Amino acid sequence: MADQIKTKNGNSHYVQKMRAKLFDIEARKLIAIIHEIDAKELGVMPLDRIEIYCPITKMRVTTVADLTTTMVKKNEIGLFRDVSRELGIKKCGFLEVKASPQPDSVAYIKKKMKGDKLSFEEISEIVRDIGKNKLDEIEISAFMAAVYIHGFDLDETTSMTKALLLDGKQLKIDKTPVVDKHCIGGINGRATMIVVPIVAAAGCYIPKTSSRAVTSCAGTADAMEVLAPVNLSIGQIKSITEKIGGVIVWGGAVDLAPVDDKIIKIEHPLALDPEGQIIASVVSKKASVGAKYVVFDLPVGPDVKIQTRERAENLAKKFVEVGKKLGMRVEALITDGTEPSGKAFGPALEAKYVMEILEGRRFDNLAQKSCELAGALLELCGKAQRGKGFAAAKQLLANKKALEKMRQIIKAQGGKIFSSEDAKLAKFKHVVRAKGDGTVKSINVRLLSTIARIAGAPADKRAGVMLLVSKGEKLKPEQPLFEVYAENMRKLELAGEFAKKNSAVETGDIVLEKFE
Amino acid sequence: MADQIKTKNGNSHYVQKMRAKLFDIEARKLIAIIHEIDAKELGVMPLDRIEIYCPITKMRVTTVADLTTTMVKKNEIGLFRDVSRELGIKKCGFLEVKASPQPDSVAYIKKKMKGDKLSFEEISEIVRDIGKNKLDEIEISAFMAAVYIHGFDLDETTSMTKALLLDGKQLKIDKTPVVDKHCIGGINGRATMIVVPIVAAAGCYIPKTSSRAVTSCAGTADAMEVLAPVNLSIGQIKSITEKIGGVIVWGGAVDLAPVDDKIIKIEHPLALDPEGQIIASVVSKKASVGAKYVVFDLPVGPDVKIQTRERAENLAKKFVEVGKKLGMRVEALITDGTEPSGKAFGPALEAKYVMEILEGRRFDNLAQKSCELAGALLELCGKAQRGKGFAAAKQLLANKKALEKMRQIIKAQGGKIFSSEDAKLAKFKHVVRAKGDGTVKSINVRLLSTIARIAGAPADKRAGVMLLVSKGEKLKPEQPLFEVYAENMRKLELAGEFAKKNSAVETGDIVLEKFE
Repeated sequence: MADQIKTKNGNSHYVQKMRAKLFDIEARKLIAIIHEIDAKELGVMPLDRIEIYCPITKMRVTTVADLTTTMVKKNEIGLFRDVSRELGIKKCGFLEVKASPQPDSVAYIKKKMKGDKLSFEEISEIVRDIGKNKLDEIEISAFMAAVYIHGFDLDETTSMTKALLLDGKQLKIDKTPVVDKHCIGGINGRATMIVVPIVAAAGCYIPKTSSRAVTSCAGTADAMEVLAPVNLSIGQIKSITEKIGGVIVWGGAVDLAPVDDKIIKIEHPLALDPEGQIIASVVSKKASVGAKYVVFDLPVGPDVKIQTRERAENLAKKFVEVGKKLGMRVEALITDGTEPSGKAFGPALEAKYVMEILEGRRFDNLAQKSCELAGALLELCGKAQRGKGFAAAKQLLANKKALEKMRQIIKAQGGKIFSSEDAKLAKFKHVVRAKGDGTVKSINVRLLSTIARIAGAPADKRAGVMLLVSKGEKLKPEQPLFEVYAENMRKLELAGEFAKKNSAVETGDIVLEKFE
Repeated sequence: MADQIKTKNGNSHYVQKMRAKLFDIEARKLIAIIHEIDAKELGVMPLDRIEIYCPITKMRVTTVADLTTTMVKKNEIGLFRDVSRELGIKKCGFLEVKASPQPDSVAYIKKKMKGDKLSFEEISEIVRDIGKNKLDEIEISAFMAAVYIHGFDLDETTSMTKALLLDGKQLKIDKTPVVDKHCIGGINGRATMIVVPIVAAAGCYIPKTSSRAVTSCAGTADAMEVLAPVNLSIGQIKSITEKIGGVIVWGGAVDLAPVDDKIIKIEHPLALDPEGQIIASVVSKKASVGAKYVVFDLPVGPDVKIQTRERAENLAKKFVEVGKKLGMRVEALITDGTEPSGKAFGPALEAKYVMEILEGRRFDNLAQKSCELAGALLELCGKAQRGKGFAAAKQLLANKKALEKMRQIIKAQGGKIFSSEDAKLAKFKHVVRAKGDGTVKSINVRLLSTIARIAGAPADKRAGVMLLVSKGEKLKPEQPLFEVYAENMRKLELAGEFAKKNSAVETGDIVLEKFE
């Protein structure tokens, strides 16, 4: 039996009592299944949304309606586990269902599609509706396409940043200064695991959230997890940061920016990366942990996300401007992305490599870059004088204060591995060697990362690739170029075959041609 | 155990053997569920596609990958019924799974997003990949957003029309002339059910596919279904059309344009209707039934899809041009959409009303328009001289040849109701009356359709609204304005309450103000 409610626009919406039929399956989306006849009565088309209310738990949820003639009967509504959880119901019972009117934000998406500028209120409404599941993937995709085509200006980028910030959870560190760093589209190298202990050792507070690898061979969260657990709660992040000065955790565990995560998921299939959205996404994440001083690392090179100096400069300026609007002091460093950052590829190899730098056993381009980033942060927040940040950072590395701080962080996060020697590698090893003599002309970071993946990384934490040469280095015949580590012979062979067919390290004579 | 295949771009793709776990549920999309660890090994992110091959049935399918840590174990792949059906498997067994490389068509979508013109080959590739499920909702949505923003020019519209036509099934009627008609965005009135028997009686062949109502109170397929079954196969459509001259069936049952159906589903939530796509969608559907002579009806009015004369003229010209490119002769008629077409709202009421026109009991604006459309078709295909089509059509109505043809069609489709008297209405009736005297100023077609829906249409076929007055008609106090029919008292009351609060028929004095 249907009850009728009148809405503003003169349309009528039934509220229909329907019996819940629970499916013990996660759909990973909020979807409910109703019979086609009920859909007609409710005025619901496929992919339209419905609002479901449980009169017992008093909970309400908006879902997409999937229509069926077989899975549920008339007056029944099929709910996947995700939806029953949101409604707080465990048993079948009666629910109240009605068509969910089209949200106002759809009109704002169309406005952006027409090329008009959106206000803060309009962007906030879009973000809120994404959060409440009132806008679905199709609408978010059209919105991102419109932002990609027409662009966001500075005001809109700032509005999006603030809207994302307000919609998510926020971390409040009761100490000062709170700092943060972020790298846009690098491939390997774990500067974060060096910068965090340096700046924490200098008296800064840095609650660093990082990502896991998906298409690369390791993310910072994967590498850090070799040393210590990274799935910490917001409460743990707060208390450890306030006590020790820093953490290095997996951002996915804390859900600080749920709407941003949804948008990123949509952008991925088309590799859409509207500049305004990248900036809003990153700056809002930094603001959500309460950072007041932030350094951005923008590597430029043919194999990384930012491929031209011009695009990097353009992005760098916008990061600074939008950061300022959010009350932050921001510095953006454009860095050399033509060479690998450090020589390790794979979670354990990278963790071991970072610990070697902290232990003073290595000082290479990764260490150098980390000191530049840490130095910039120290200058920004006043912990070092202008022009003296790099030296201060290097000093904290040299005197092992950063190492000591890293060990405190590992311990506070519940870790048990405190030195490079304790980070074990996979037991099967294959060495790729130079064919003749010559010189290292170029090193392909993407290919090395792919070899590490074929060898098992990041799922096999101890698998990966260790590069043994540098660009410009003179080679002898049979000199080892890199090592591949894998957990079993099959994976090692596959990675070896791939390495044989694809020259990750290009060698050549320095003299290319000779005129006589 | 994973096997590696090298692809063109130097990336490696594992082929992984995985055990199928079947879920006895329709997902209504092609989705497979894999464990997050397998996703990492395959290099698959959420919403990426995977290719699944069954070595026993030799069938292959591309699906979206949904990641889980709970629903399936590592080395297992969860398949909904849709996917197991595509693979032809009924029991659990081993399947070969690999990441599906990004299709080339993604680059063409991005090209359109950048504002560039697409070639026929590029548009065809996009259409093919939508058909093969290699492009999903997110990508189709971004594509439609780009087409909405940048538009399709005449070449692109023609390319899209041809691509949609080539991708779907095609009906081949071995008789001539094959004709068709199509109405863009009207609300009520079943001109199709009058045009089809008239032109068939004149010796044309018209295999008419129609839609069901979703947000309105009846579609042509719903109204025709009151008289005869409408879920016919392509074979039945062909043989009946060749024998009798015409059919009126539900297009959804024959799947002539599967890609177009997917695109329309995506366009709906944002009410995206890029002009080029509307034209391609409609013209390709007409071409797919083999029509050589086509008349388009474009009603213009405040309550219908096309609201300005200018837009209607623009569309009309493009229909003619694109039709020509597809080898059709096309005429587009811009018609008056400010008043309801006929007076019936709801499947049985509309079917009964149409039969009354065919039986010669009524001749109103719907009959007039139907004769105009049929006349235009008869002139186009040479069955009537220029300027004599309308009279010829009217004659076929007057001499009952059209009625006789309609009865043949009903019989051939397996129907049992051959006259207006046999079309029964719902037993509960409520009459809405004029309050005082005055004149009918306007009739709101949308509100009448909503009242019919609240009364139960289109799910309750015999429910609906019968309008009893015309625009400009002088009213007496208590004169009946319209009747509401419903299958039970509750629905009748709800519809009555709504009718009381919303004036579907606006009345007023002819003299608005009097100066003395």
